[in-house]
Amino acid sequence: MTIKCVTSVVVGVSSFFLGIWIDRKYREHNISHRIPGFKIFDAVYAESNVVNNQQLVINNEQRVSQIMKYGFPSLDNVRSYNNFVLSYDQRNRIPHWVLEHLTPESVQYNPKVDRALCDFFEDTSIHEFFRATNKDYKHSGFDRGHLAAAGNHKASQELVNQTFVLSNIAPQVGKGFNRDAWNDLEKYVRKKAKNNKNVYICSGPLFLPKKGDDGKLWIKYQVIGDNHVAVPTHFYKIIVTESNKSQFYLECYVMPNQVIPNNIPLKDFQMPLEVIERASGLQFFKRLTLDKFIKLEK
Amino acid sequence: MTIKCVTSVVVGVSSFFLGIWIDRKYREHNISHRIPGFKIFDAVYAESNVVNNQQLVINNEQRVSQIMKYGFPSLDNVRSYNNFVLSYDQRNRIPHWVLEHLTPESVQYNPKVDRALCDFFEDTSIHEFFRATNKDYKHSGFDRGHLAAAGNHKASQELVNQTFVLSNIAPQVGKGFNRDAWNDLEKYVRKKAKNNKNVYICSGPLFLPKKGDDGKLWIKYQVIGDNHVAVPTHFYKIIVTESNKSQFYLECYVMPNQVIPNNIPLKDFQMPLEVIERASGLQFFKRLTLDKFIKLEK
Repeated sequence: MTIKCVTSVVVGVSSFFLGIWIDRKYREHNISHRIPGFKIFDAVYAESNVVNNQQLVINNEQRVSQIMKYGFPSLDNVRSYNNFVLSYDQRNRIPHWVLEHLTPESVQYNPKVDRALCDFFEDTSIHEFFRATNKDYKHSGFDRGHLAAAGNHKASQELVNQTFVLSNIAPQVGKGFNRDAWNDLEKYVRKKAKNNKNVYICSGPLFLPKKGDDGKLWIKYQVIGDNHVAVPTHFYKIIVTESNKSQFYLECYVMPNQVIPNNIPLKDFQMPLEVIERASGLQFFKRLTLDKFIKLEK
Repeated sequence: MTIKCVTSVVVGVSSFFLGIWIDRKYREHNISHRIPGFKIFDAVYAESNVVNNQQLVINNEQRVSQIMKYGFPSLDNVRSYNNFVLSYDQRNRIPHWVLEHLTPESVQYNPKVDRALCDFFEDTSIHEFFRATNKDYKHSGFDRGHLAAAGNHKASQELVNQTFVLSNIAPQVGKGFNRDAWNDLEKYVRKKAKNNKNVYICSGPLFLPKKGDDGKLWIKYQVIGDNHVAVPTHFYKIIVTESNKSQFYLECYVMPNQVIPNNIPLKDFQMPLEVIERASGLQFFKRLTLDKFIKLEK
């Protein structure tokens, strides 16, 4: 009787877990096909591993949670890399948003890293109908502007290489913007990262309306190349700083995608968060409630 | 020995399925919190129940699977109703796409249904930053144009009411478009639905570029109201018909959002699927591979 009991219990318990295991295996397979988010993450990692013949993405799930600690602005075509996560706008062939997480360690400059070794490369995880190519930018008159800045990720060659994926890029006016005012804003962020515990930066494009001669509001922007890559009218950067005393600070900037005179101070581009949220259709750092902030943007 | 064997088998098999059942229950709960799509469905149903004091959405999960049988074009802000499912574009305050499933039964006209009793209503499941309002359309000169057509859902007052949610609406030129050419296309779809087993229709906005005097390509569109609701340059309709012999047919149409002369035949607006996919950034009916189609659009 006792032996019968023990056998039944052993068989019962092991069947119970076998059931769970087989069902999970089966469902994982199914879910990865049903919900693109899951599949895409895997696909990106697999693919990233062979970019430029270098081993790239390691231990991703944990890193994505770190970067996205305060919430995803949206879940449309999300792609993840070591130090940044982005959402790709298939209609405009540029990112919706790119979120970086920087620390004093991550922005350390490794003298062996050479930006000149980097090449812009297509994101083959994006369907060819929606994929921006180097050819689209050629002779367009626009720079291939980084959203996650190359200069923020110079701790290793692999990390800086990742920022050259074209899904992290949008057409930017070169002289007077990408190489000047926007670059100054990137340097300002980097300085913050060196002196604080954590800095989270969300960068992206805006398409802002203008009043026409008819008194109506119009959104107008150029598209370049065979794939009609959209040229944003503006770019935003939202910076959340967690100080060494674990206090939070928020600053938001909006810059027009045009030649900006040298003498305009950075603070003139500050903008309330709500303006950027309304214009982009996104909500940022939703998990950080406003009462956590010591200093909000003016 | 035989009894021991039988007991073990019975215990084993039942534990196996008990394991699956408990694990699924537990995981369902978890997944609904991790994947916004699922949670949103629940929220929408809860909210829909009190719209116009009428009991609306019943047995949803199954109905959503029916409507979306051949795949979701995207997963951005999905909302579901009895006869249609939509994805809302928070930046443009109009749908990305609206997918309807029609049958000979569903398009039957119930004489008790009165469209005049319907009021356009705001979608309170959308954050107020991104929500289109009736005020936005007032005095704009544009109609509140249905994507899922009111006329397709006259089997009951509840069903037709659902099509008046503003997340199913986009600004359309009234006379010469919404009330004419676009309406003719809707009637054509309805006729198809009456004579076939199943009709699936995906409708949505397009923002198509035009060559400027400078030789460059520009996208230009008006935005209306305090919430800057985008006025699309064009609208598309993709129609998949499953005939009574279970054969599949595909037709795609693109119409400019402007006064269209009466004498242009419907077939002049036919467009290859790929053109709509490239312009919208979406892929339609992905689960229906092209070899299934008897007749493709020209």
